[in-house]
Amino acid sequence: MNSARQINIAVIGAGGVGKCFLSQLEQLAKRRPEPKLALVYICTSKKAFYSAEYASIPLDTAISSLPSSSQTPLPLSGLADYLSATSSKTVLIDNTSSQDVAEAYPLFLSRGISIVTPNKKAFSGSYKLWQGIFSASAQSGALVYHESSVGAGLPVISTLKDLVDTGDEVTKIEGVFSGTMSFLFNSFAPTSGSGGQWSAEVKKAKELGYTEPDPRDDLNGLDVARKLTILARLAGLEVESPSSFPVQSLIPQELESVASGDEFLEKLPEFDSRMEETKAEAEKEGKVVRFVGSIDVATKQVKVGLEKFDRSHPIAALKGSDNIISFYTKRYGSNPLIIQGAGAGGEVTAMGVTSDLLKVLSQL
Amino acid sequence: MNSARQINIAVIGAGGVGKCFLSQLEQLAKRRPEPKLALVYICTSKKAFYSAEYASIPLDTAISSLPSSSQTPLPLSGLADYLSATSSKTVLIDNTSSQDVAEAYPLFLSRGISIVTPNKKAFSGSYKLWQGIFSASAQSGALVYHESSVGAGLPVISTLKDLVDTGDEVTKIEGVFSGTMSFLFNSFAPTSGSGGQWSAEVKKAKELGYTEPDPRDDLNGLDVARKLTILARLAGLEVESPSSFPVQSLIPQELESVASGDEFLEKLPEFDSRMEETKAEAEKEGKVVRFVGSIDVATKQVKVGLEKFDRSHPIAALKGSDNIISFYTKRYGSNPLIIQGAGAGGEVTAMGVTSDLLKVLSQL
Repeated sequence: MNSARQINIAVIGAGGVGKCFLSQLEQLAKRRPEPKLALVYICTSKKAFYSAEYASIPLDTAISSLPSSSQTPLPLSGLADYLSATSSKTVLIDNTSSQDVAEAYPLFLSRGISIVTPNKKAFSGSYKLWQGIFSASAQSGALVYHESSVGAGLPVISTLKDLVDTGDEVTKIEGVFSGTMSFLFNSFAPTSGSGGQWSAEVKKAKELGYTEPDPRDDLNGLDVARKLTILARLAGLEVESPSSFPVQSLIPQELESVASGDEFLEKLPEFDSRMEETKAEAEKEGKVVRFVGSIDVATKQVKVGLEKFDRSHPIAALKGSDNIISFYTKRYGSNPLIIQGAGAGGEVTAMGVTSDLLKVLSQL
Repeated sequence: MNSARQINIAVIGAGGVGKCFLSQLEQLAKRRPEPKLALVYICTSKKAFYSAEYASIPLDTAISSLPSSSQTPLPLSGLADYLSATSSKTVLIDNTSSQDVAEAYPLFLSRGISIVTPNKKAFSGSYKLWQGIFSASAQSGALVYHESSVGAGLPVISTLKDLVDTGDEVTKIEGVFSGTMSFLFNSFAPTSGSGGQWSAEVKKAKELGYTEPDPRDDLNGLDVARKLTILARLAGLEVESPSSFPVQSLIPQELESVASGDEFLEKLPEFDSRMEETKAEAEKEGKVVRFVGSIDVATKQVKVGLEKFDRSHPIAALKGSDNIISFYTKRYGSNPLIIQGAGAGGEVTAMGVTSDLLKVLSQL
């Protein structure tokens, strides 16, 4: 091993996940001095740090001093030029949820720059972009890892890849893929007790920071549809986009176009009876209602929406805002391989990014 | 990439797991022609195939034609000589549960031979052997992977390593680590209904092939203790051996020295009242009894034995012979990261071996 080896790291995005990642990277660099990890580029949407000499930016103060930087971000093609104009191996960490950055992955990969990201957009956009990413990676040998794009740090993507790569036949994937939806239904329709009113639970979830600023961005089901798109493609289905299969939105049609999230929350109680009906219907069968995604590989059916589950079913018994993902495969037979736990949050999302980075480092 | 690159594979053991692994390797070699995987050595305890030219042994007939081979296995030091006398990178797959083979890991690793194995013995033996293995690996750069040593193909070891390597603080690990114990207690003390008689359930489990030939080899708790030893060490505890912490045996003392497994099964009904008492005690508290292992990292307490759980607890709600492993960590907070599914069986154990092999191949 070459003891003077340096790996260059570039980071786009310094929000919640970005901050946790930088802190994990700082600890990692302390624990494992070899190979030397040099942060040579970091940016938000407005500010950046980098130098022509690829000088290592101090990890502990990089983010806090960004606002006072006089540098602005390089355009993405300029960033690819900058990062590939050195003999050091380079890993780009995309901690944004930007479509533009996602669309530049094939460019970075074709220039030999490996990518690690929790950004769902690249893998759940058009199938053409998916193919562009993986063919660029195959041609250049640059690696691309995105564990945190589904279930944050939970080992979901790696497990599915292991199943497929070792030749198992995945027949079905089913689960609760949204922390927000998990929290809402675990409170609205608990396995014991009667639960709260739908609109009140949505309001509470927003106050606790479990929803997007406009809760409709969770209730439309698109976030779950994006995750299902990624898993279905990894399982071998050519899913064209997250809108090419049925996705049930929990936004009452009448409220789809109200101006703001606040107005939406104000009017939501008028529609509580609809969700109440769904809950009662499930209760009549001794079941509870949950918002799930499922992929039936044999029939190529992907869908997202409300389903009823026995109270003893692992999906019904979920706690808090946990995710649960069940893989049904030929080898595992009637009892699925199940992964469960927090599927959102800065630290656990960053953990998925950091563990992907370690996997990339072991192969560079 | 060097298109003519060949990786040599040596396999010890051709039992249940060995057969499934060879079949998975054959499929893998068909799907991924590069790098060329050459089986250059395979042996059982009595027979072997290998050649001075490292000729590739046909994967489809290797095991079935072993009995008629005129070659006998090389002694382990001779095998290390043979495998390291070529410039090709080599991976040794140990599909046995042999202590002797386990003790030779430091030798193989020091000669640059990577190791993949489901064999628990090497990682749950003396702490000195553990240190010898990982220091030999660190010095030579040869890799050692053993996912299937705990929970078969379930991503248990890889997840724990990711947690530790990314700087999370694992506070507690708890779970059902034995498919046999899982089956026994899920039938003996189900979450609904009254369950069977203890001795009858043990007899049934044996008839279904869920126990070792002598069921005492499951009931003594040693298998679980070995798995706990491995996980505790990965979590940073210097556990000396599987007998250096409390392990509850479910073998009545009076039956420990009866001559055979059959005699044991014959006499076991005389002791049913003891297990019945334990079950009734749990029921009084509205709970069920389960055979679990736990590691409290802060207090360094490792233990294996009977515990009571609420009926709604994921450990109580387990099905069939599934394993469940819960990781409590600082980042995951009060709700653990949980992995659940079949933790035994030829195909899923071999799957863990094959996915480890893929990880090694990506780094060679």
